Amino acid sequence: MPKINKYQDISEIDREAKKDLIDRHSPFIHSADTAKAGEPFEVTVKMGNEYTHPDDFDHYIESVTLFDGDTMLAKATYVPGTLGNTKAHNTTTFTIIPTGKKLNLVAHGYCTKHGIWEGTPKEVTVEA
Amino acid sequence: MPKINKYQDISEIDREAKKDLIDRHSPFIHSADTAKAGEPFEVTVKMGNEYTHPDDFDHYIESVTLFDGDTMLAKATYVPGTLGNTKAHNTTTFTIIPTGKKLNLVAHGYCTKHGIWEGTPKEVTVEA
Amino acid sequence: MPKINKYQDISEIDREAKKDLIDRHSPFIHSADTAKAGEPFEVTVKMGNEYTHPDDFDHYIESVTLFDGDTMLAKATYVPGTLGNTKAHNTTTFTIIPTGKKLNLVAHGYCTKHGIWEGTPKEVTVEA
Amino acid sequence: MPKINKYQDISEIDREAKKDLIDRHSPFIHSADTAKAGEPFEVTVKMGNEYTHPDDFDHYIESVTLFDGDTMLAKATYVPGTLGNTKAHNTTTFTIIPTGKKLNLVAHGYCTKHGIWEGTPKEVTVEA
Repeated sequence: MPKINKYQDISEIDREAKKDLIDRHSPFIHSADTAKAGEPFEVTVKMGNEYTHPDDFDHYIESVTLFDGDTMLAKATYVPGTLGNTKAHNTTTFTIIPTGKKLNLVAHGYCTKHGIWEGTPKEVTVEA
Repeated sequence: MPKINKYQDISEIDREAKKDLIDRHSPFIHSADTAKAGEPFEVTVKMGNEYTHPDDFDHYIESVTLFDGDTMLAKATYVPGTLGNTKAHNTTTFTIIPTGKKLNLVAHGYCTKHGIWEGTPKEVTVEA
Repeated sequence: MPKINKYQDISEIDREAKKDLIDRHSPFIHSADTAKAGEPFEVTVKMGNEYTHPDDFDHYIESVTLFDGDTMLAKATYVPGTLGNTKAHNTTTFTIIPTGKKLNLVAHGYCTKHGIWEGTPKEVTVEA
Repeated sequence: MPKINKYQDISEIDREAKKDLIDRHSPFIHSADTAKAGEPFEVTVKMGNEYTHPDDFDHYIESVTLFDGDTMLAKATYVPGTLGNTKAHNTTTFTIIPTGKKLNLVAHGYCTKHGIWEGTPKEVTVEA
């Protein structure tokens, strides 16, 4: 507590409302599969893949946080209205500069009504 | 992943270094046991009870977040040096105004070296 | 731009609505006048002195930031509802540990409708 | 106070160290010149144009904040090390959805040693 809701593959879920709930709250990581050590590397965190989330004053995506394993890299914070009070994919692209051998990227999204959601981790190979 | 480290009662732990690790990273909630609905109520989040945490540039408490169950209430963010680069208890007092029947307060602390730590929840009765 | 609205002494303002606007948006610093170097020192940032601010979903105090001169010490971020959706004084107490000869404390508050507001700075003597 | 340092055209500055100081701390806005109302619109905030900023533990870009006029749209917060402790351009791309007739985009960057810096505003026409 607080519960960390985890993404599940929605193709295995029958009920449309549940697919929608899970998908729209999950932060998806979009990036290249390999990075170069010491070079800028773009990582996009996008909330929802097939379903969009409201941007209502009392129900919005307040933040997304990007981690490499247990280490926080960056966080983006939003206020309601930035997405025009419409249903949309909250999307942020962070630039990081990796130094080790691999990244274990994972993101949290926070919805003011439905709490913390964790997406599927993405491993990125870092080449020297 | 990221791992949510949870507080354990350190009196049951033998090794001093482990007691220190757990205690200094755990956010402790200090507040009255009952609140009055619609009235300001102070909640203090204090990192560590018996052990203090460094405030080094490469190792510090970056933030504490206060939740009521799954709902984030407030978050305090720090930069290294605010605690004089000494070992100390990072401490923040938030004022909230409860509206329901009870609060289920719990806090997360984030250390730039040791990740996310969750303290013991505290239930507060809210009187009408 | 963005405009940094500055606190003015409201006793010199005639119009009630303007007194209210300025007072409720201004972060007031409450602390002792002297601190001891290397010791924890509490600084309270309270929004408004005589007038309270709404905590509506589309109009709330999103954050307060505490500075020592040009240096940020800490920031507290809120979501709408934490103050029960009532009119109130958003209030946060930070603990800092001063190291120099004096502090020049000043705070910013951010209202989602009326932007950034800066309070009156407070000088604190730091004794060895 | 705190001082809001403003970008100046560095081509009019002689001293190399001053050009570097101003440029590396200034948030530059990169976006299309026109947006479509109700459609996602990408805005990149990049610290520095010709000069890069350190990512040292005691000297780093802690955050960038994007405003439309006086209204905060989004903020990205970083910890030291995310840019590999190398000199680089801290870069974040936010997605916003405009609803009015124009955007008056402007960004603040915060350096833990040199305070708040404001870039040159960029007006974006929003088409129906």
